[in-house]
Amino acid sequence: MKTRAAVALEAGKPLEVMEVNLDGPKAGEVMVEIKATGICHTDEFTRSGADPEGLFPAILGHEGAGVVVEVGPGVTSVKPGDHVIPLYTPECRECASCLSGKTNLCTRIRATQGQGLMPDGTSRFSLPDGTPIHHYMGCSTFSNFTVLPEIAVAKVREDAPFDKICYIGCGVTTGIGAVINTAKVEIGAKAVVFGLGGIGLNVLQGLRLAGADMIIGVDLNDDRQEMATRFGMTHFINPTKVENVVQEIVEMTKTPFDQIGGADYSFDATGNVRVMRDALECTHRGWGQSVIIGVAPAGAEISTRPFQLVTGRVWKGTAFGGARGRTDVPKIVDWYMDGKIEIDPMITHTMPLDDINKGFDLMHAGESIRSVVLY
Amino acid sequence: MKTRAAVALEAGKPLEVMEVNLDGPKAGEVMVEIKATGICHTDEFTRSGADPEGLFPAILGHEGAGVVVEVGPGVTSVKPGDHVIPLYTPECRECASCLSGKTNLCTRIRATQGQGLMPDGTSRFSLPDGTPIHHYMGCSTFSNFTVLPEIAVAKVREDAPFDKICYIGCGVTTGIGAVINTAKVEIGAKAVVFGLGGIGLNVLQGLRLAGADMIIGVDLNDDRQEMATRFGMTHFINPTKVENVVQEIVEMTKTPFDQIGGADYSFDATGNVRVMRDALECTHRGWGQSVIIGVAPAGAEISTRPFQLVTGRVWKGTAFGGARGRTDVPKIVDWYMDGKIEIDPMITHTMPLDDINKGFDLMHAGESIRSVVLY
Ligand SMILES: NC(=O)c1ccc[n+]([C@@H]2O[C@H](COP(=O)([O-])OP(=O)(O)OC[C@H]3O[C@@H](n4cnc5c(N)ncnc54)[C@H](O)[C@@H]3O)[C@@H](O)[C@H]2O)c1
Ligand SMILES: NC(=O)c1ccc[n+]([C@@H]2O[C@H](COP(=O)([O-])OP(=O)(O)OC[C@H]3O[C@@H](n4cnc5c(N)ncnc54)[C@H](O)[C@@H]3O)[C@@H](O)[C@H]2O)c1
Ligand SMILES: [Zn+2]
Ligand SMILES: [Zn+2]
Ligand SMILES: [Zn+2]
Ligand SMILES: [Zn+2]
Repeated sequence: MKTRAAVALEAGKPLEVMEVNLDGPKAGEVMVEIKATGICHTDEFTRSGADPEGLFPAILGHEGAGVVVEVGPGVTSVKPGDHVIPLYTPECRECASCLSGKTNLCTRIRATQGQGLMPDGTSRFSLPDGTPIHHYMGCSTFSNFTVLPEIAVAKVREDAPFDKICYIGCGVTTGIGAVINTAKVEIGAKAVVFGLGGIGLNVLQGLRLAGADMIIGVDLNDDRQEMATRFGMTHFINPTKVENVVQEIVEMTKTPFDQIGGADYSFDATGNVRVMRDALECTHRGWGQSVIIGVAPAGAEISTRPFQLVTGRVWKGTAFGGARGRTDVPKIVDWYMDGKIEIDPMITHTMPLDDINKGFDLMHAGESIRSVVLY
Repeated sequence: MKTRAAVALEAGKPLEVMEVNLDGPKAGEVMVEIKATGICHTDEFTRSGADPEGLFPAILGHEGAGVVVEVGPGVTSVKPGDHVIPLYTPECRECASCLSGKTNLCTRIRATQGQGLMPDGTSRFSLPDGTPIHHYMGCSTFSNFTVLPEIAVAKVREDAPFDKICYIGCGVTTGIGAVINTAKVEIGAKAVVFGLGGIGLNVLQGLRLAGADMIIGVDLNDDRQEMATRFGMTHFINPTKVENVVQEIVEMTKTPFDQIGGADYSFDATGNVRVMRDALECTHRGWGQSVIIGVAPAGAEISTRPFQLVTGRVWKGTAFGGARGRTDVPKIVDWYMDGKIEIDPMITHTMPLDDINKGFDLMHAGESIRSVVLY
């Protein structure tokens, strides 16, 4: 069949919206009609050519929501008509990683996904001239119709709006999951979030949900304060306006009983390795935990004195918020529908597929939290 | 009163054995007759002048065992005649750290201990001419009699031999505690220990006690193999004899079911920051934990790509093995007396106080695991 898609033909070029060829689902695969998709920094990282592992031509996009239209042989967990969210981190429930109970990083289809291919080593997409187009993160939601492995879709309730829950396919789950699954923040905790963009806002609301007492936000941009406060931030620091952001956080978190100070938990949502170091070092001696969410430029390294760890701080990271996609994503959709978490104010812009490059421009200008393409 | 002690008069000089003045215990303090003390790298770090925070003159030593001879006003938890192990990490059970339940790093007397003083800000030791001598790590076990805060002694059973259990005051507890308290290793785990000196051997026996299946030891020195095997090592790697130690460990830990490979837990017991990086990077994607025990040279930094953490590895450290001294040290003495752990083969040399500098020479030559001074 044919479908409309925004294609990344070459690194660094704008996406081209065109009609492409799409083969039907093979065994263990499903075809999904994408109804809405967010535009994320990770798409831009690849589009721009900054990702050394980027492949072209490709159909990017990994924050989608839609409806199953066809299933291949052997598919049992979803059927046509089911509402689903594509998962760039699949959940096979059979591999060593899934069965470890210790990680969400299913490895069942990792090799082919990294090569821009379906699990059988081929692509379902091709250009009008027949040239294969790479899949992206196993999702390719910048196409109106796409094919995914069955283990890479989460079935969700049918009354949830596609234009909001698509964001659960990446940023919402990443930010909230970092708090709940990775850090396991407890009631009364003191926490710091570095970077108050889309991910940071979701960390904030994760902290509010977890019952944190003190939720400090750090951003270079004062304009982020208003939205951050809405999502649960209790204190704001602009690091350019204090002498030393680590010392500032240590002072703010002291109490009459605890004169050591430091955050119980910190989160990096900037992708800057210097910030990651501050995030570790502002945590409390003896038990502070720092979680890296941001994706650093290729080759960049984090560093600190080992004494920081020997005196009890823990350095961690999170991918997709530690969430097991098929199990946890439907729950987060429920939380949204029940009003436990908010998404609407973060979807600042919507546009048709033809205007997708405007979404990237808004991201560069720092004007959007999230732009969503509506098919 | 007077007591014999080995005094570090100046950085970089051999210790001088002499008679010094010792004041009796003040409120909340106890005087202990030290019966045996180990000689540790940490003592050498200070003696040599490498420690930028070293103070002189000082009476070093922190791995002792002895008998309470006098208690100051208000002391209730020990009495003359009690057998005790001095604690460089005290346990007050009242400060924010002790009450957190998350750390062993009691902060009650941290400031004065770091200044080489008792909690009231003065020293009990002085040279024959009256010059005050600094206490060291709150212990100063290189003196036949010493004064310690009550919260810095662990009461232990009276049938345990001083010349062996003194090592529980540092290396034994550090190594075993790193496994049990910090990493919380579970039955069947695969683990790697970098550095098979005194600390490394204790990590090995901690892993054996915890039921680890595969216990890989890594050391530059092939001679360490025999003793390490005795303490539980199942596989040995000399990093100079393989192309890439990280890759080697990843291959060794693969199974037919798990083709990713990597250790579940790793421990650095070398103090080399390059080794600390390898120790992190050889752990399993998704859940590997690496624990830093070694103390790095002043100013040295650890580094890695943040991707290592984002894909699920955790970087931690441990001080005194995460053990709460007054609570846990008596248990470890029981484990020794019950034959659950071994100490005897690690005490490779003993000597009288007059020969203490020979103990340092043996350490430099790499000939001893542990030298113990017997008073
Ligand atoms: N680990 C994962 O699974 C995962 C998933 C999605 C996104 N990410 C990553 O999370 C990071 C954040 O994504 P986002 O969408 O929120 O980005 P964003 O650009 O919307 O927000 C980043 C924010 O950080 C602030 N910032 C930049 N440098 C700073 C500094 N030095 N100090 C303080 N604040 C600073 C910016 O002003 C901005 O508000 C990115 O690196 C992205 O790639 C990770
Ligand atoms: N965190 C704590 O609470 C604590 C407590 C006591 C000691 N320590 C530290 O633990 C470390 C080990 O102490 P130890 O008494 O066992 O020392 P040690 O000198 O007896 O043993 C170190 C071992 O590491 C090996 N080694 C050195 N470089 C290596 C390399 N690049 N690769 C592989 N092996 C290497 C040596 O051959 C030696 O066998 C020291 O740094 C010490 O300061 C920490
Ligand atoms: Zn994304
Ligand atoms: Zn799996
Ligand atoms: Zn020691
Ligand atoms: Zn305490």
